[in-house]
Amino acid sequence: MGPVSEFDWISKYLKPIATSEGAMSLENDVGILASLPPDRPLIATMDTLVEGVHFFRGDPPETLGKKILRVNVSDILCNGAVPKDALLSVALPDWFDEPRFERFCGGLGHDLAQWNVKLVGGDLVSTPGPLVLTMTVTGSCLSPNPVARSGAMVGDAVCVSGTIGAGYQGLDDAKAGRDSPFARHFRVPDIPAPEIAEILSAHANAAIDISDGLIAEAIHVGRASRKAICLDMETVPWARNCASVADMIELGTGGDDYQVLMTLPESKLDIAIKDAASAGIRLTRIGHVAAGDELQLKHRGKIVPVPAKLGFVHGN
Amino acid sequence: MGPVSEFDWISKYLKPIATSEGAMSLENDVGILASLPPDRPLIATMDTLVEGVHFFRGDPPETLGKKILRVNVSDILCNGAVPKDALLSVALPDWFDEPRFERFCGGLGHDLAQWNVKLVGGDLVSTPGPLVLTMTVTGSCLSPNPVARSGAMVGDAVCVSGTIGAGYQGLDDAKAGRDSPFARHFRVPDIPAPEIAEILSAHANAAIDISDGLIAEAIHVGRASRKAICLDMETVPWARNCASVADMIELGTGGDDYQVLMTLPESKLDIAIKDAASAGIRLTRIGHVAAGDELQLKHRGKIVPVPAKLGFVHGN
Repeated sequence: MGPVSEFDWISKYLKPIATSEGAMSLENDVGILASLPPDRPLIATMDTLVEGVHFFRGDPPETLGKKILRVNVSDILCNGAVPKDALLSVALPDWFDEPRFERFCGGLGHDLAQWNVKLVGGDLVSTPGPLVLTMTVTGSCLSPNPVARSGAMVGDAVCVSGTIGAGYQGLDDAKAGRDSPFARHFRVPDIPAPEIAEILSAHANAAIDISDGLIAEAIHVGRASRKAICLDMETVPWARNCASVADMIELGTGGDDYQVLMTLPESKLDIAIKDAASAGIRLTRIGHVAAGDELQLKHRGKIVPVPAKLGFVHGN
Repeated sequence: MGPVSEFDWISKYLKPIATSEGAMSLENDVGILASLPPDRPLIATMDTLVEGVHFFRGDPPETLGKKILRVNVSDILCNGAVPKDALLSVALPDWFDEPRFERFCGGLGHDLAQWNVKLVGGDLVSTPGPLVLTMTVTGSCLSPNPVARSGAMVGDAVCVSGTIGAGYQGLDDAKAGRDSPFARHFRVPDIPAPEIAEILSAHANAAIDISDGLIAEAIHVGRASRKAICLDMETVPWARNCASVADMIELGTGGDDYQVLMTLPESKLDIAIKDAASAGIRLTRIGHVAAGDELQLKHRGKIVPVPAKLGFVHGN
């Protein structure tokens, strides 16, 4: 099966029927549900994980409960918001029996408590197909607007949290049955500490959750902001040693990192890095924002061609 | 594959991790997200439709776009709330190609406009399995609390909107390839006009969306309210002529009606029926609420045993 042309179909068929202000042109991972006093948007995101695509049948059920929550919480945090409530839908195949469901709920319950998210509803249905997990998570913004992907300004520094490429390497390891920190990250993503929401809300002009690869997400920010995102590949905190630029490109086009890509004024860089560090978040400058609308990749000052395969698409 | 013991698993594993007030013990089809001024809850519901279970591959794609919206809107309306925003997730198999997706969005867009719901976000992923549609819809309550299933009072009249059993007959007709008004209702459910939310909010003590069969939903209201729901089978507005009580039981245990079951003080019955009629909604009294906690079924005064198969479970 070919990968879904997700961005294509969204632009062509969903944007025309999603014209309200709260939809934000479907150009963010969240939509706005309401305004809570004092002028703080209540936002929501929705992510789906499919057996055989985003996780595997042999994964411990606890990890599925954690992963479906974390991929959604990550979207909320990266918009400068505090996660709040969740609704969960599970399409249950025969093989996902009661002991597995109990373990799934154990993992989910653990992480709901950890991230202070309240489960308030959902649906359970049976399916003749693979296990499908869908969750909606809401969040309260910490400022009058979500930190959207469209706010990058010329002269901004570009930063990422954590490391990049753990998801790519983890998928590889998980498929090969290798237990590794990367495989564990693939199953239960390390997402930024909750303080990232405050840091983004206080300092960032734009932000995005890195779920489809660093390079694809940088392009999303550039396009939405109508700016050129310029990345210096040798400054990226890669999750493992890279022997070559091709290696870096591989890690930069893998999915499932769930770190944040942000842009912020150079003048705020030091304080943002310091604030992040005191919350245990490693923030690294990897580039800057310029006029234009193309992604610019460089390695030690030399231009690197942008790969044709722009990001990880969860196809089969 | 056996049916999912949905209510069992919800009670045993999800209720213990859904302890916030907004979850309302997971005993309603909605959860509470926030309080909007002046003291009106913002609620949300989430429903999933699976190919081969809730719809069939041969169904026109437009009908899928309408059905996924309507089954969710129906939950919001039945809680006395006005539908507001939607998030949509689609797990796309190979066979659901671009022309089908376009037609799906056409049907969805039509019904979003009809029900005044704004699409604000969601997710598209690919799947090796059946097409799975999941939607979250939010709603603004018209009074300080949702009209929950737990509010039935001794002496209340029990009413339903529309007719009962169209979903059961429609599934039968759809499976047999018979085109009929019932098959059309199975594909694109007739749900109550939006005015039902005002009527419920103004008059009802308890209400529930009839998605799993009249008899099962009556039991849900009785259990949540700790009251006996007493139904007179001959007064139910069955969707087709019933030759026998067994026939009635069949229609009363089918799914996919998407009408409302409500209880309200006898003193408000006439005005509720009149208000409903002026909105084009047929409201029919089918029983009353008594002390106790058992469902009581009667036909022309004679007790009818409650069937062992209590409601329609969307198994395979």
